[in-house]
Amino acid sequence: MDEIKVPEGWSIVDGKLHRELKFADFSAAWGFMARVALLAEQLQHHPDWSNSWNRVVIDLQSHDVGALTDRDAQLASAINGLLPTV
Amino acid sequence: MDEIKVPEGWSIVDGKLHRELKFADFSAAWGFMARVALLAEQLQHHPDWSNSWNRVVIDLQSHDVGALTDRDAQLASAINGLLPTV
Amino acid sequence: MDEIKVPEGWSIVDGKLHRELKFADFSAAWGFMARVALLAEQLQHHPDWSNSWNRVVIDLQSHDVGALTDRDAQLASAINGLLPTV
Amino acid sequence: MDEIKVPEGWSIVDGKLHRELKFADFSAAWGFMARVALLAEQLQHHPDWSNSWNRVVIDLQSHDVGALTDRDAQLASAINGLLPTV
Repeated sequence: MDEIKVPEGWSIVDGKLHRELKFADFSAAWGFMARVALLAEQLQHHPDWSNSWNRVVIDLQSHDVGALTDRDAQLASAINGLLPTV
Repeated sequence: MDEIKVPEGWSIVDGKLHRELKFADFSAAWGFMARVALLAEQLQHHPDWSNSWNRVVIDLQSHDVGALTDRDAQLASAINGLLPTV
Repeated sequence: MDEIKVPEGWSIVDGKLHRELKFADFSAAWGFMARVALLAEQLQHHPDWSNSWNRVVIDLQSHDVGALTDRDAQLASAINGLLPTV
Repeated sequence: MDEIKVPEGWSIVDGKLHRELKFADFSAAWGFMARVALLAEQLQHHPDWSNSWNRVVIDLQSHDVGALTDRDAQLASAINGLLPTV
């Protein structure tokens, strides 16, 4: 597997780029998810993700090659761009 | 028509509570709209609204009574709650 | 645990109302999810759910009581109402 | 202005591709809009559109050239692909 640069806030878990996020409430989580959906469709690269009220867990992998690729790092970075910086 | 309190940032135009918003881009506008949609369905009170890329224009009126009511002020205030404060 | 009526298409898995759905593509799955989000906020009862491209998996439980309640059956039935009938 | 092929269900109004749609309720209209948003971001071509409960009005124009182009016809056709055929 080629090395990819792991974007800030993400880790590699079970061979996938993984990030867990917690928002103020469902509305805030959903507003974020609506924007991730736009990114996913624009990049034609879609996350495996789950939501429970204010929590969103995202896993990224390039299913077609069964590994992490630059497309995963690109989507992870774009998702980071949606988050407030501390 | 009973007087309603006009929430900050809104004005009364053509008998409707009116607000025009500008976001960074379509994604930011859409993330906001996705949250307004949740509010509208929760309050069972829906806006007349339009979007052009990063712009969102919202008009609120209680169509069933053809006037402004507390429900309009309530939705306007809830929408304000989604916006960053300056 | 009180008995609830399990809506058609759902089963009880690990104490939760469970349904797995497959759509034509991400867009169709996302359009469905956007409508489930409205239901969840309107009912103030939110699913544990995940999405992978055209697949959506939903688990419902009343977290506040740690069991299935009528609210789960109500949300499950409302979700069914969004699906095409065969 | 080059001629474009006007997709079925659309007309040219004020120099824009125009379509008015009516859905069962806000939820159905919103589910449709969520899918149009994905198309718009994927094509990087965004509609001027408005919504009032179950109604959605869409106008398409290539703002950068101030005219209708193939990109408008492409987005209109893609939007048609989201609608049930009669």
